[in-house]
Formats: sequence, C-alpha cells, structure tokens
Amino acid sequence: MANAKIRLFVDQPLGQGQVIALNEAQANYLFAVMRLGVGAAILVFNGRDGEWRADVAEAGKRKGLLVCAAQTAPLQSPPDLWLLFAPIKKARTDFIVEKATELGAARIIPVQTRFTSADRIRVDKLRAHASEAAEQCGGTFVPQVDDVIPLGKLLADWPPDRRILWCNEHLAGVAEALPKGGAPGPWAILIGPEGGFSESEQVLLAAMPQVVQASLGPRILRADTAAVAALTLWQAHLGDWK
Amino acid sequence: MANAKIRLFVDQPLGQGQVIALNEAQANYLFAVMRLGVGAAILVFNGRDGEWRADVAEAGKRKGLLVCAAQTAPLQSPPDLWLLFAPIKKARTDFIVEKATELGAARIIPVQTRFTSADRIRVDKLRAHASEAAEQCGGTFVPQVDDVIPLGKLLADWPPDRRILWCNEHLAGVAEALPKGGAPGPWAILIGPEGGFSESEQVLLAAMPQVVQASLGPRILRADTAAVAALTLWQAHLGDWK
Repeated sequence: MANAKIRLFVDQPLGQGQVIALNEAQANYLFAVMRLGVGAAILVFNGRDGEWRADVAEAGKRKGLLVCAAQTAPLQSPPDLWLLFAPIKKARTDFIVEKATELGAARIIPVQTRFTSADRIRVDKLRAHASEAAEQCGGTFVPQVDDVIPLGKLLADWPPDRRILWCNEHLAGVAEALPKGGAPGPWAILIGPEGGFSESEQVLLAAMPQVVQASLGPRILRADTAAVAALTLWQAHLGDWK
Repeated sequence: MANAKIRLFVDQPLGQGQVIALNEAQANYLFAVMRLGVGAAILVFNGRDGEWRADVAEAGKRKGLLVCAAQTAPLQSPPDLWLLFAPIKKARTDFIVEKATELGAARIIPVQTRFTSADRIRVDKLRAHASEAAEQCGGTFVPQVDDVIPLGKLLADWPPDRRILWCNEHLAGVAEALPKGGAPGPWAILIGPEGGFSESEQVLLAAMPQVVQASLGPRILRADTAAVAALTLWQAHLGDWK
C-alpha cells in the first residue's frame, strides 16, 4: 500500500469493492512507467464519486485490474460557474482549460466568435487536459468541456437566470461590479478573442439583461491571463474561496 | 508610416529626435522578418521613457537606425508590488514572468528555498521574457528581474515597511486578509515551491511582522496559477485595477 501518491482519472463507477478495468494507456503508465505491481495502491477518481484508494489486483502489459478499497475524499463540486472563451493558440487554449479546472469552473465552453478561428480545436484533447489537471492538483471534480459552439447560437438559447461576467474595457473593476453577498446562483464568465468581439457581438451582449460588464484593470491582458484573473476574482467574491 | 503596429523593446534612452542604433537581432527582425524599409514607423519603449513612434532611418542586414519622432504613450508604472517565487519547471517559470509583467508587478525576484532547485534558472532569458511580454501587451514598463537569491538571505534584509502577502493554507481568503482602503504602500507577494516551504522557513515567515497570511481557496493550485491569482487579487483590492 505505502503512501498511494499516484492519482488516476478513470471513467468508471467507483464504490466499495468496485473492480476497475484499466485500458492500455493506464496499464502502461502504472506498470511499465511507474513500475507498480500487484498489491500496490493508488488513488482514483472519476469526477462523480469522490476519491478512492484502489489496489492493483492484476498487472498486465496491456491491461490490468484495480479494486476500490476505501473512499479517501468526497466529491468536491465547484460553484455553478461556466467559462466561455474563444479558442486561441493551442498552448494557451490548453492552459485555459488547465487553469479553469484548478480554479474551480464547473463547465468549459469554447465559443466561435466573428474573429475566432476555431477550426483546429481538438475537444478530446481539451477533455484529457481537464482530467490531467484534476489528477495533478488533487481535484475530485472534472469540468465538462463542450464542443465548440458559435457564440450567437449559445446566446440565443441562454438561460434567463444565468448571469454572464463580460470582461471588457468597462469602467468598473470586477471586484466592484460583482453583486455582494448571498448565494451567487448560476454564472458564466465570458473571455473574448484576442482581436476583440465584433460590433454586432458587442451590441448583442450589451443588450442581454444577464450580462454584467467589468474591467480587468488598465493593462491589456492576453486572453489566457484574462481567463485566470476573472475566474480568480469571481471565486474570491462569489465562489468558494471566501 | 502607416499604423505603426510593431512594438519593440530597446535598451536605450528615448526622446524627441533621439537616434536608436539597432542590434543584429533587432535589424533582422524588422528588416528581414517584417520586411520594413526606410521610412517605416514602429513603436518603441525602454521601460523608462514611455512609448515612442520611431521611423526607420537606415535599414541594413545586421544593423539599422531608428529616429524617435513623437511620444505615443507616457510611462505607465505599476504599483510598488514585488513578486517572490520559487522557480519551477522552465515553461511554468517563463509563464510566471510573462503573467507578472502583464498583471503589473514592479519587480520579480526568484528565490531559492529549501525545496527548490534553482540551478538551471537562466535569469537573462527571464528578463527577455519580461520585455517580450511588455512588447506584446502594449505595456510601457518592464519589471526588473533579479538574480536568484536564497530566501533566508532576502528575508534577513527585508525592508521593515514592505508587507508580504504569503499565500498558504490560511483560514482567511486574500480578499478578506488584505487591508482596506488608503494607499497600499510597498508590498510583495510570496509564492512557495510546489513542495511547500520547510518548517524553519514557515517559522521564519510567520514571525515577521510584515507578513500577511491568506488562502487562495480550497483547491490545490500549481505555483504558476497561485502567482497569477494572488497578483490579480492584490491588484483588484490594493493596486491600480480599482
């Protein structure tokens, strides 16, 4: 058993005595790379059932079995906060997904705007990034990562009760613009593309009653920095950092 | 002239009519990569004299001359905020320097802690990262990046009036722990290594009257995420984001 330090995301139900079949990549990682053998213990989570200690019951070259022994942490769900962002260069898009997972976003939605080219977004890779970020940071929750959706389409069906923090060149800072106290209810943060929103997108957003405009200071921030800064301020003021 | 979009950091004085001699890398970038010729205009800044429009007066293969035409933006100095961080993997250290520049830190100090191996830190590269970040984000200020210094040595000579925001597992969140209102005075943010501070380092820090302890929420954040989150909260509450 030792001090089970390896954390693995598995897409299977977890519970007392539950058997987990490993796929080839997982078996390779645990048994070839990390050189674990039968009887070794690791930590597993699936984003739904908290974190469990699981013991290696079978170790093969391309497969293996774990058995869930005991829950080590309950599921820690983030607040009901979505992050909407216009995909940018690959490394920075990966970064946004990693940071949103760490900082506690519940759902991540890449949006296609007038000035975004999101042709080459690999959403499967982004999903893997989210579960890897949770693996490495001790998280038990993995945010849902949606397929890319055109901004106009997303906003046309926008839930009436979900507010949107739109970080633009507004006069008020985020800390001042966010409502004070009480349960925050459902929210989303919207980060635009590096080229900015088109005029018609701006008109559409400004007309939505759910939208709260605010500024992230006097400097120009890259989109990835803006995403981290906005998530941080939201969590500190309305989320679970208080 | 057109719409001078290229921004270049130059380490020379800027002022009306000032001639700027370009080095080989700058000449290559402007004349070979960007294909500018004599008469073209770019924007230059040196971190001290604001931003200037400069016109190409000579364009050679390995050298060239610019002439400062007019100031386009004054120097925008950040608040008196230092960032102290324990260097981590190269990509994430680069990232911390880039983000600290964007978010408005005045000085960046890599510190060697008990659990940091900072042997391979290339401070010259970090300095280049800071000026590149300012180039790309429209900044006119470039934070000073110090050589790596042992934490104990830095703290032994610490200025009595400079407070330190130490982000650890404290009960209070940063937004609550920071003092309210008034001029902030000199501050520093301290981000520990991924392995945490040693017990003696923790004792030393906790005993310093300048130290303000606070938490960055219930999740474990990577050091680079913690740096961005702490800079953001400090700027929103005490800095120039208000």
